[in-house]
Amino acid sequence: MQTPATSETLRDLYSHDGLLVPFNSRLLDELMEQAGIDVVLATSKHNSQYLLGGHRFFFFGQSDAIGLSRYLPVVVYPRTDPGGSAYVGYCIEDDQTTVEPLWIPTVENSSTGTQDAIVAAARHAARSRNGPITIGIEPAFLPADARDWLQNELPHARLTDATTVLERLRARKTPSEVELMRRVAESIARSILDAVAEHGEGSTKREIAESVRQAQTRRGLNFDHCLISAGADPNRAPSEQEWRLGETLSLDSAGDLGGYIGDIARMAVLGQPDALLEDLLEQVDAVQMAARSVVRVGTAGREIYAAASEALAEIPMRESTLFVAHGIGLINHEAPRLTDSGPVPYPASHADIPLEEGMVISIETTLVHPARGFIKLEDEVVVTPDGCEALGDTGRGWNVQLGRSEK
Amino acid sequence: MQTPATSETLRDLYSHDGLLVPFNSRLLDELMEQAGIDVVLATSKHNSQYLLGGHRFFFFGQSDAIGLSRYLPVVVYPRTDPGGSAYVGYCIEDDQTTVEPLWIPTVENSSTGTQDAIVAAARHAARSRNGPITIGIEPAFLPADARDWLQNELPHARLTDATTVLERLRARKTPSEVELMRRVAESIARSILDAVAEHGEGSTKREIAESVRQAQTRRGLNFDHCLISAGADPNRAPSEQEWRLGETLSLDSAGDLGGYIGDIARMAVLGQPDALLEDLLEQVDAVQMAARSVVRVGTAGREIYAAASEALAEIPMRESTLFVAHGIGLINHEAPRLTDSGPVPYPASHADIPLEEGMVISIETTLVHPARGFIKLEDEVVVTPDGCEALGDTGRGWNVQLGRSEK
Repeated sequence: MQTPATSETLRDLYSHDGLLVPFNSRLLDELMEQAGIDVVLATSKHNSQYLLGGHRFFFFGQSDAIGLSRYLPVVVYPRTDPGGSAYVGYCIEDDQTTVEPLWIPTVENSSTGTQDAIVAAARHAARSRNGPITIGIEPAFLPADARDWLQNELPHARLTDATTVLERLRARKTPSEVELMRRVAESIARSILDAVAEHGEGSTKREIAESVRQAQTRRGLNFDHCLISAGADPNRAPSEQEWRLGETLSLDSAGDLGGYIGDIARMAVLGQPDALLEDLLEQVDAVQMAARSVVRVGTAGREIYAAASEALAEIPMRESTLFVAHGIGLINHEAPRLTDSGPVPYPASHADIPLEEGMVISIETTLVHPARGFIKLEDEVVVTPDGCEALGDTGRGWNVQLGRSEK
Repeated sequence: MQTPATSETLRDLYSHDGLLVPFNSRLLDELMEQAGIDVVLATSKHNSQYLLGGHRFFFFGQSDAIGLSRYLPVVVYPRTDPGGSAYVGYCIEDDQTTVEPLWIPTVENSSTGTQDAIVAAARHAARSRNGPITIGIEPAFLPADARDWLQNELPHARLTDATTVLERLRARKTPSEVELMRRVAESIARSILDAVAEHGEGSTKREIAESVRQAQTRRGLNFDHCLISAGADPNRAPSEQEWRLGETLSLDSAGDLGGYIGDIARMAVLGQPDALLEDLLEQVDAVQMAARSVVRVGTAGREIYAAASEALAEIPMRESTLFVAHGIGLINHEAPRLTDSGPVPYPASHADIPLEEGMVISIETTLVHPARGFIKLEDEVVVTPDGCEALGDTGRGWNVQLGRSEK
């Protein structure tokens, strides 16, 4: 079986006052200090998992809803006091934390919905500090009713947004995280190639996308999605549209292992690619490689966009080509954020901040040709002292399918 | 491919002022009237999908988080006015709604996070009524920040809880829904049997649970979870514990097709079951069958518990046996709620309300034996005028594995 025990996947531990903590708690303390946060209450699956060193309750691995409410994992982290941390899990979560023990000193697997989960967490938060406290929450991942009960339980607490604090904490990946992300990226690339090999003339986009899901699952991944376009039609939803001789196929798929996401796009063609197709993919690749060429520890985020823009300006299809790059990890489009455009203010943007070792970046170039359709590559690289290392570079050229569908 | 297009799965339409609506909009109007709700804003995946007749955006089929926020689908339904309904989807959701058109008159696929999603929905809600309105929300599935923006956009709107209104709306399944749930339940039962057949002496619980995931996926399902216990140890988390000769194996797994969940528990044993095991499973089955025997249109919910309690009182292992029954559909443990115990007040409980045709009920009996471990069956039945019909009765006896692991 390829799915690792969560306890096996993340072995990088930080010592903090005699406790072994599975994340950089000194960095979290600093970020909380800067944001004026006394206690973090993490309620998203990605952040609760991160603070728990990989724990994600298998019973709610895919879904959240149950009964009239939902699963709400809550991690309570008081600044500079990992020993005062607590986790509130679901009423039957003990089975998992027994066989995969958590680092966190206080574990209370008692909740049945949002109300009892957040009230239990609020009481742990209150115990960790005397007097009024500022609590960092995740406003997009704290249900409205849970925030009411939290505020009701702690009427003098001030609630503030901890989203960017937690995102910044996760930005640098440890060697174990990078290794997991390498497996995911490589597995997705290979799953795309499997799906291409299993199909041909007359296969529908729905069938091919389903094959990517099957192939990812066989490799132990949790499939997330597969955007797919065939021929000139730029529509990327799975559908009954059939792949036809001479047509391109763009496959852009995501999946995860232990919560760590990979997102890879590859190209295929039914029949040998002609000179135009070779040229179009080279143009896309030129932009991709230009972006990679500047990635290294110390590069400011905006230099990646600058390098890509320069390469873009030199390709014939520049008016129909779009470049994007973003961090990736437990969620897609996370830190480092490489531009300061858009709604994201400092400190979320890395536009002027040097990249650090272990950051993982997804690099995407999309060319839309009126007759040949979507030509796209999406790759992942990890930042190293001397440059970057690709995490799943398999199949970056034209993946040629000559036969008919095997199905 | 076994995964159906969402547009193919739910063909039961209700006519309402010339519009074909994929749910019983007259019933929703009634329930909203009773609850004093003018406009419903559905923000959970299950309820937005239900009101959209099966649509679930494939890009966020598994995950929600993206960037610094998350996907938030919002369906706006003004009471008695399906023609005034609107859907706010994600900025790239048009690709799917183009190939699988929605019934809903206004579709605005524009959002990038919780803020723009809920603000757009609030504007549609405001247009649907003059003057102050009461908006029904899903407090456990509306993020705290989204509720702030909603209230900010519509300062005079009163927000109230629509959870039980929407749950009651979904309680009766149409023939298409029942057909889908039959496929799911049967596929889960068969996936459990596949996993048993692929394993044997020395296989770990983690490997066997992973096999259930693989088998469900091959059948086109979205795997949800697999609770698993082996031998005397009642722990049901996947782990490195090995299945040993003579030991029981309890497998309790859920998955879905098009969002419709199945939840089935079956028993296996490594080697021939002895007389004690045969007897224990018969005790469990006696309680299960007693519960089924009273299910029919018109039975009050509490009669199911009453029949099971009576049967429980007659079995030798009654002190170590637990009975539960609950509705199941787009979420697990939904209406009908068959007792009035617990925190759920009327109108959520069906304890004294007659069951209706098409309700689907999950029936579970769990016996924990000190030496032989978890002995559990979980079945699903659909309520019919004359009784009930089981949806996935395959493999309810001892599934005997004689060989060693094939792996």
